[in-house]
Amino acid sequence: MSGSVVIAGLGPGAEALVTPEVRAALDAATDVVGYIPYVRRIAPRAGLTLHESDNRVEVDRARHALTLAEGGARVVVVSSGDPGVFAMASAVFEAVEHGAPAWRDLDLRVLPGITAMLAAAARAGAPLGHDFCAINLSDNLKPWTLIERRLRLAAEADFAMAFYNPRSASRPEGFTRTLEILRECCEPGRVMIFARAVSTPEEEIRVVSLAEATPEMADMRTMVIVGSSATRLIPRSGAPLVYTPRSAPA
Amino acid sequence: MSGSVVIAGLGPGAEALVTPEVRAALDAATDVVGYIPYVRRIAPRAGLTLHESDNRVEVDRARHALTLAEGGARVVVVSSGDPGVFAMASAVFEAVEHGAPAWRDLDLRVLPGITAMLAAAARAGAPLGHDFCAINLSDNLKPWTLIERRLRLAAEADFAMAFYNPRSASRPEGFTRTLEILRECCEPGRVMIFARAVSTPEEEIRVVSLAEATPEMADMRTMVIVGSSATRLIPRSGAPLVYTPRSAPA
Repeated sequence: MSGSVVIAGLGPGAEALVTPEVRAALDAATDVVGYIPYVRRIAPRAGLTLHESDNRVEVDRARHALTLAEGGARVVVVSSGDPGVFAMASAVFEAVEHGAPAWRDLDLRVLPGITAMLAAAARAGAPLGHDFCAINLSDNLKPWTLIERRLRLAAEADFAMAFYNPRSASRPEGFTRTLEILRECCEPGRVMIFARAVSTPEEEIRVVSLAEATPEMADMRTMVIVGSSATRLIPRSGAPLVYTPRSAPA
Repeated sequence: MSGSVVIAGLGPGAEALVTPEVRAALDAATDVVGYIPYVRRIAPRAGLTLHESDNRVEVDRARHALTLAEGGARVVVVSSGDPGVFAMASAVFEAVEHGAPAWRDLDLRVLPGITAMLAAAARAGAPLGHDFCAINLSDNLKPWTLIERRLRLAAEADFAMAFYNPRSASRPEGFTRTLEILRECCEPGRVMIFARAVSTPEEEIRVVSLAEATPEMADMRTMVIVGSSATRLIPRSGAPLVYTPRSAPA
């Protein structure tokens, strides 16, 4: 069995954030499989077949990639950001676990990428410089009650928080509820960052207080970061710097 | 004022994990500042001065970088992994906040990198495929009571957990205590990953249950990942695949 499935992270958008490891895997691939906008980032070339699929069919897409590899193809499954963070790697392993036994013995590799929260944090300063958590706010695949419980415990732990998939047109109410919960648990001056389309030409970074935040500041292309109680603003000409100190008082 | 300070992440060790953005910044630098082993990763060249400093002098190092930039230098402060995750970015901003007012108007940029938990997770599968947290287990800069509180709340939230700086020769007892707390809060079969020196020739990945874990499995070059209660093992010939499913039951 000579085929392989490499699950590769393309980073948040800019080509300068694609690692050389991922670039080499793409150069060696016979097939690239992924969600339409991510596959469109790959330049066509002779010997490479591009397979685009729609959103919300992640396990079907994974099975397709594994089937191609079983036939000998060198498949790269592309994800934005890091494939292991709310992206394709878990979908591929879910397909492996419940699929053909031979799929377990394929050459399966995950190549890390710059995940959105790290790119967004870097643009604002260092809001994730101390302990933090990452929560997917989409309730497509988990009950809202679990999200709410995690938000409350994360606030109690005084973690900085990074929210993936904060708000979509089909479920705008979750992020409204998230802001309500944060207002119950955190002080009004808590620092929030709305980082949209980071590293692309449409990039937009807003730094606001929890009191100022509104649901409309987020969409599916926005990464939301909430500071811990220790997160600080450094005023200067232009956007302030946001950072969470390395030390916490006793 | 023409100088700049770029705080750049070199990733976990392999050159293939250094982003082109970071590579370009290093190529344009007049000065590189950092902890000895990270500066030693940079090839010397004409026009580039390398400034090595020891561990635990992060704010002094940051002031040095800012002073060089104030004099017109194009400085790159190198961190391993991502500079915003338990690394140099927060130290630089701490120095900026408490330093010369002119430092705030320098060209200050953070360039993200592949942080250790993403590289370690990728080697094992996708253990961080669902909600997770990152905790620095060093109590050099925060009280142990805060670490312990965060561990208990993270377990209650059923986050997967990534531990940075789990254990050093000078404070071996913290990680022993961490395992005790996890055993109070989690089932004995909870999946743990000990990923040492990821992406370097000394890389070693161990997957064990919480019941099997011992303090000696970790040192300062080890990234420790603890699965959530939903994290699964896929047995196969060779090391098992570890992943956390994207969906959580209602």
